[in-house]
Amino acid sequence: MNDSARRVRVAVLGCGVVGTEVVRSLVEHADELHSRTGTHLDLVGIGVRSTATPRDPVVPSELLTEDLPGLVRRADLVVELLGGIEPARKLILDAIGSGASVVTANKALLAAHGPQLYEAADAARSDLFFEAAVAGAVPVVRGLRESLAGDRITRILGIVNGTTNYILDEMTSSGLDFETALAQAQQLGYAEADPTSDVQGLDAAAKAAILASLAFHSRTALGDVPVQGIREITPADISSAAQTGHVIKLLAIAEVGRHGDRPGIAVRVHPALVPTEHPLASVRGPYNAVFVEAAAAGTLMFYGAGAGGVATSSAVLGDVVAAARNAVNGGKAPAESAYAALPSMPAEAVRTRYQIRIEVADQPGVLAEVAALVARRGVSIETVRQGAHASADDVAELVIVTHEASESALAATVVDLDTLEVIKRITSILRVEGN
Amino acid sequence: MNDSARRVRVAVLGCGVVGTEVVRSLVEHADELHSRTGTHLDLVGIGVRSTATPRDPVVPSELLTEDLPGLVRRADLVVELLGGIEPARKLILDAIGSGASVVTANKALLAAHGPQLYEAADAARSDLFFEAAVAGAVPVVRGLRESLAGDRITRILGIVNGTTNYILDEMTSSGLDFETALAQAQQLGYAEADPTSDVQGLDAAAKAAILASLAFHSRTALGDVPVQGIREITPADISSAAQTGHVIKLLAIAEVGRHGDRPGIAVRVHPALVPTEHPLASVRGPYNAVFVEAAAAGTLMFYGAGAGGVATSSAVLGDVVAAARNAVNGGKAPAESAYAALPSMPAEAVRTRYQIRIEVADQPGVLAEVAALVARRGVSIETVRQGAHASADDVAELVIVTHEASESALAATVVDLDTLEVIKRITSILRVEGN
Repeated sequence: MNDSARRVRVAVLGCGVVGTEVVRSLVEHADELHSRTGTHLDLVGIGVRSTATPRDPVVPSELLTEDLPGLVRRADLVVELLGGIEPARKLILDAIGSGASVVTANKALLAAHGPQLYEAADAARSDLFFEAAVAGAVPVVRGLRESLAGDRITRILGIVNGTTNYILDEMTSSGLDFETALAQAQQLGYAEADPTSDVQGLDAAAKAAILASLAFHSRTALGDVPVQGIREITPADISSAAQTGHVIKLLAIAEVGRHGDRPGIAVRVHPALVPTEHPLASVRGPYNAVFVEAAAAGTLMFYGAGAGGVATSSAVLGDVVAAARNAVNGGKAPAESAYAALPSMPAEAVRTRYQIRIEVADQPGVLAEVAALVARRGVSIETVRQGAHASADDVAELVIVTHEASESALAATVVDLDTLEVIKRITSILRVEGN
Repeated sequence: MNDSARRVRVAVLGCGVVGTEVVRSLVEHADELHSRTGTHLDLVGIGVRSTATPRDPVVPSELLTEDLPGLVRRADLVVELLGGIEPARKLILDAIGSGASVVTANKALLAAHGPQLYEAADAARSDLFFEAAVAGAVPVVRGLRESLAGDRITRILGIVNGTTNYILDEMTSSGLDFETALAQAQQLGYAEADPTSDVQGLDAAAKAAILASLAFHSRTALGDVPVQGIREITPADISSAAQTGHVIKLLAIAEVGRHGDRPGIAVRVHPALVPTEHPLASVRGPYNAVFVEAAAAGTLMFYGAGAGGVATSSAVLGDVVAAARNAVNGGKAPAESAYAALPSMPAEAVRTRYQIRIEVADQPGVLAEVAALVARRGVSIETVRQGAHASADDVAELVIVTHEASESALAATVVDLDTLEVIKRITSILRVEGN
């Protein structure tokens, strides 16, 4: 047994909420981790921006250092919890270059520079683990890249942002409007002071890109992910959805499809109507869940706490144990698997179902007129019903649900609808998923 | 790169439904599996009882052999899908002895002889994977032994038998009685002609033992698992549960507790009332789900198809890919982790909540009398209510829900209740879990 088998020198970069919890486990559960890894995890340093910042007493102050590159050089296993692109990217590349294993929770970095990091890790035969980058403690990364490695995944529907799920859930269960629910989420610590990244779906988009890469063995970048947030969702949207047995969820979707003759992958983030009997519909509060459809496995769901420092530290430590075991046994985390190299489909080619709510003149023949117009663009109507949210006496609401249609056909239909005299207003257009 | 990196010789033992699907993937997706493992999976033989049995055309007849020990000697990776104890146990030990990796779906074998197999695999530094042994395609084995390896699991509640979940779900949603629901499950292929092992909870108990071993790093044998099946569950039990917002599920439970001063683990299988808002309550039909409570991760759930040849083959192939990757990279599956060696708690020390339904004389003062008697044994009552299932005019039903009580205190209480003049009959005693 060589030296690295007796002792793995661990550096933790970043000592915020997650970092503190990781340090706590390394310090307080050292014996347990030894039993589970077969090696001693020796915490050699904690890289921080300022050693002067007051910290939880569990953090050994003598291990704090502002010299992050120096710390990386002394480590066999680097746990990157800095967030952001730089210096995280550079430090991870340094670690890989020096033969260290890396565990990171940095979804933004992976979505932006994943291929560079994967290639460096493969070239150096180093481990790169990132379970905590998607859905916190929910072990979906390992599920996709290991458990389902012998299957063919066809679609992923994920609730991967706890902030927006909490807000939508409060709007659904308590009838709050968006702003009130957001304020409540901020008060409870489920939303940040600047909620932009969450509310606009950007956080979910980074995770969607990572999930799509893993599921479809193809590189998917953040730029391949069209994003729509939840800021426009109104209480009327939610109660209208409820009338047809749906709830509104912000979904990260990744699926294989065809564009012309060629297979491709479609990744997107947007709010969608989900049937109440779908397993994703009952994901409440700030919880996350990832629903996976695979050729052999059928449907699977991974569910759990999506965020929070303690929960995320569980995923980080699972990766630390795996990396340490590999250090002992000579194994290696699965390399990047991008052999399929499926192209991203253009957004307008993606097919899904739509719910369109429109306000029309309350007079006979309107429904037929609207239906005829919709059919003209090749969009097939599943149901039309009279809605409950008309804004005035001489106005009626129609709620149209289409069969699967391409985004381009839908867009053309909407342009047409706008020309129709009897239509007062297109109130909302939402996708319907999970059928 | 040595020889084994270029080519892994795979033997499949057993060619029933799962075996046929595994062979199908190895044959039809060979290129894909090559891309994912970095090595060629060379199917060298399929061990069967009789080569004369007619089979799916995908099975290459020239690879069939009745000489299973001979086949094992020619393999680097043995996929054991025979089921049962012998010859599976002997063949797996032979494979390990010759340095081959093993993937098995054999829960009965693992529950009975797991430690012997784990020790042999560790001694030989061979891989032993068994994702398919618990909950089919649901990746809970990898979840427990890898993803949560840095966390402390405190409790597992699992729906791990699809047959019984289907039966209970049909009894709940369609009001069927047990026998009718069972017959329907048999007709649909969800229950076997001899449903004893499923219906009596024995299949779930084997899985519970495996889950407990993984979660608590302690050996747990089938004999440590008290089992109660679902044959006694009546439509009245189900409607009574519904009145208080519960559904009845057959649960495999594993938790850490204390017995006197010593920590211990309690594993058991029995039907239980689960609150309708609990994620396990919405697991419908033949689906499986495993709900995990961990110190850092909080609550997690793994959900999916629990059985069926195709779904199970997904789990087997995930393990095959992992084993092949290790053959290329020199890694090793996690060894058995039994360092904690927690003892099994005696059944009578296990504490849980109970719902007791009793028929009493319909006269004043009965409720007080019953409540006083229950309190005498230190069992604390949470609610008593008048039930809806009295059998005659002068008879009333009481439904008592207790706070947590030990099984021994509950048993003593029941003996006492039986002596009470005003009590006509104890209709049912069911545990309440998931709060």
